[in-house]
Amino acid sequence: MKAEILAVGTEILLGDIVNTNAQYIAKRLADLGIAVYHQSVVGDNPERLLEAYRLAFSRADLVITTGGLGPTKDDLTKEVAFEYFGKKSVVHEASMKIIEGYFKEMNKPMAKSNVKQAYFPVDAVILPNNNGTAPGCIIEENGKIVALLPGPPREMKPMFEEAVVPYLEKFQQGVLVSKVLRVIGVGESSAEEMIEDILDNQTNPTVAPYAKDGEMLFRITAKANTKEQGIKLIEPMEAAIRSRLGNNIYGEGDITLENVLGQMLINKKLTIATAESCTGGMVAAKLINYPGISSVFMDGVVTYSNEAKINRLGVSIETLDKHGAVSSEVAAEMAQGIARTAGTNIGISTTGIAGPDGGSIEKPVGLVYVGLSINGQVKTKMLKLSGDRQKIRERATMQLLDWLRRELL
Amino acid sequence: MKAEILAVGTEILLGDIVNTNAQYIAKRLADLGIAVYHQSVVGDNPERLLEAYRLAFSRADLVITTGGLGPTKDDLTKEVAFEYFGKKSVVHEASMKIIEGYFKEMNKPMAKSNVKQAYFPVDAVILPNNNGTAPGCIIEENGKIVALLPGPPREMKPMFEEAVVPYLEKFQQGVLVSKVLRVIGVGESSAEEMIEDILDNQTNPTVAPYAKDGEMLFRITAKANTKEQGIKLIEPMEAAIRSRLGNNIYGEGDITLENVLGQMLINKKLTIATAESCTGGMVAAKLINYPGISSVFMDGVVTYSNEAKINRLGVSIETLDKHGAVSSEVAAEMAQGIARTAGTNIGISTTGIAGPDGGSIEKPVGLVYVGLSINGQVKTKMLKLSGDRQKIRERATMQLLDWLRRELL
Repeated sequence: MKAEILAVGTEILLGDIVNTNAQYIAKRLADLGIAVYHQSVVGDNPERLLEAYRLAFSRADLVITTGGLGPTKDDLTKEVAFEYFGKKSVVHEASMKIIEGYFKEMNKPMAKSNVKQAYFPVDAVILPNNNGTAPGCIIEENGKIVALLPGPPREMKPMFEEAVVPYLEKFQQGVLVSKVLRVIGVGESSAEEMIEDILDNQTNPTVAPYAKDGEMLFRITAKANTKEQGIKLIEPMEAAIRSRLGNNIYGEGDITLENVLGQMLINKKLTIATAESCTGGMVAAKLINYPGISSVFMDGVVTYSNEAKINRLGVSIETLDKHGAVSSEVAAEMAQGIARTAGTNIGISTTGIAGPDGGSIEKPVGLVYVGLSINGQVKTKMLKLSGDRQKIRERATMQLLDWLRRELL
Repeated sequence: MKAEILAVGTEILLGDIVNTNAQYIAKRLADLGIAVYHQSVVGDNPERLLEAYRLAFSRADLVITTGGLGPTKDDLTKEVAFEYFGKKSVVHEASMKIIEGYFKEMNKPMAKSNVKQAYFPVDAVILPNNNGTAPGCIIEENGKIVALLPGPPREMKPMFEEAVVPYLEKFQQGVLVSKVLRVIGVGESSAEEMIEDILDNQTNPTVAPYAKDGEMLFRITAKANTKEQGIKLIEPMEAAIRSRLGNNIYGEGDITLENVLGQMLINKKLTIATAESCTGGMVAAKLINYPGISSVFMDGVVTYSNEAKINRLGVSIETLDKHGAVSSEVAAEMAQGIARTAGTNIGISTTGIAGPDGGSIEKPVGLVYVGLSINGQVKTKMLKLSGDRQKIRERATMQLLDWLRRELL
């Protein structure tokens, strides 16, 4: 089976957004063993869109589109696909009810134009959208298949995983079994160097490294006749990678660092509170991403000003005067102060210079001190981070949480 | 002049990398007023690559390629372009010397295969590469132009700016001037309905709406002979859109909601502190994205547990017992409590059920109360939000900050 990925949207042609959808779908089709020889982007123009369908189906059996399922007149992906296949569309009542319910829940009036999002040919496979108003659909006709997915990645990805992948599995020969190992605390090239010989000699299973938001992943993929055989094939490869990377591997699959850490805290019955300056709430927000966190996360403060550090945490005026707010000493007092005032086992802290201003030769932008107080024992660490304000804050957050994870191992 | 962007590389088709080059070039071509109707990706395969050139030149005058200029046998972009134009290539001595020098400087032996990177047709315009070994080139023949650029963005971008942009300027007729208006608090379809007649009757300038992370944008683009004329053309259109959307427009260009709000707070000399439960630090983190915020943002708390709400903010046990933590009353006491304990003009608060668990019929997942205390005056608002845990928290954050913006207008 040959597939093509067609992104529809003038905003991509104008360079307003990056077409990350194509990468996501390409990666997943590769996992499924479906060949992709072309990706294209076309604007919200009916003639060029129709021509794009003709071209794509002249080269491929499966065309996956993203974008253009919205309620506006510019959103034409669906309508032109129906035209290409010569299909009439009618209101799909179940979808209409879901869209109406979505607006009711949001307490907003539904625009008339949203009705258009519920129109589909009677023989289309409807793909429900649990994260937005636009349902997708699959049309299969004379061996040609089109899957129409929404543009926002938050809507597209779950729809792809929940509806498109199961649909495509019937076209697969054998199975592909994948396992993802998540690595933090070592850079991409260092991690790759640590398993260079494995990467050079891979056949089945294959190992694909890729970097992602301050961490990196190794995806091990085995091709086999059955799922069990695939899992068996993956085992020795996984063991080899784990023996090289050790504790730098923090989890598997879709797990996140905050979930791993949250589970550790709960298992060890350790309560936690956060005291943040430069990260300004990011550390707390990250921990609270984990739904189960409420049994251990008690309290957090964003003591951005010196006054707040003094009042909320009891950081001493002397320490602030002598060492400055961005110092190992203040990080330590913040961590101790939050653990004490919140009555938790663990207190963690950040104080640093996220920029773009406020740096000096002695304390440049990117200098961040993080602190850990675990059952009364205090440690601090100096980080020298690069990137813009946002990136420095995100990196400090991830490094602090990873440090805590390693301390709790 | 019509242009197409053609990325060459199997790694893009496999989804191993995101094609950010296409976005960069698209954006810059839009700036230059050169229309792009198609972007494509093709692998390192000579037949499909040749076909891609044929197709692209059947639709466009200018084709800009990225990738495939490396030294290996897989790198064919240049060779197939020369074949398409029927051109022979010879060693370009100046380029050869630069490549040799590059390896000398890096203290590495030059592979034989690198010689291939210095081969060009005699009439090609050579584009020097100051950040890697692969020179690019431009070939112009019978009104068809190809610009061949390297794949790594750090090589491609400077080459594009330093060599391609100056080359293209001679083809420019007039300029395109754009202005972006940023809208929050109304959905995409509602916003479009508000200016439906404008959208239906646009010619020059044009108006393009698009949704983006909980907000939406209108891009007004005028084609004119000079920049000044373009700005003049945009003015009445902008005024018309502003008169319809009013305060729903919060800013222009690349500005963010937190920057607008931060500037308002600074101009009005209003200090602020945050008290968060379900958003767990997101509101503070968002405000602190704005680099200038330190003069007004004093303090924040993430009072996730009832104890923390009582201890840090003085929320009364009675209120918690009677109304529950997720209630208008608690949101009000949190907002008042943070303003009082932090000594700020403004206190803002969130308390809600982000899910996936913890919902009930009376208080379902997505129910969030937000509170504002401005110079002693307290208000609360009930939000009913949809989406997953993360989305609900992000939406609550944006709606609270937008509400504060509107209150300060």
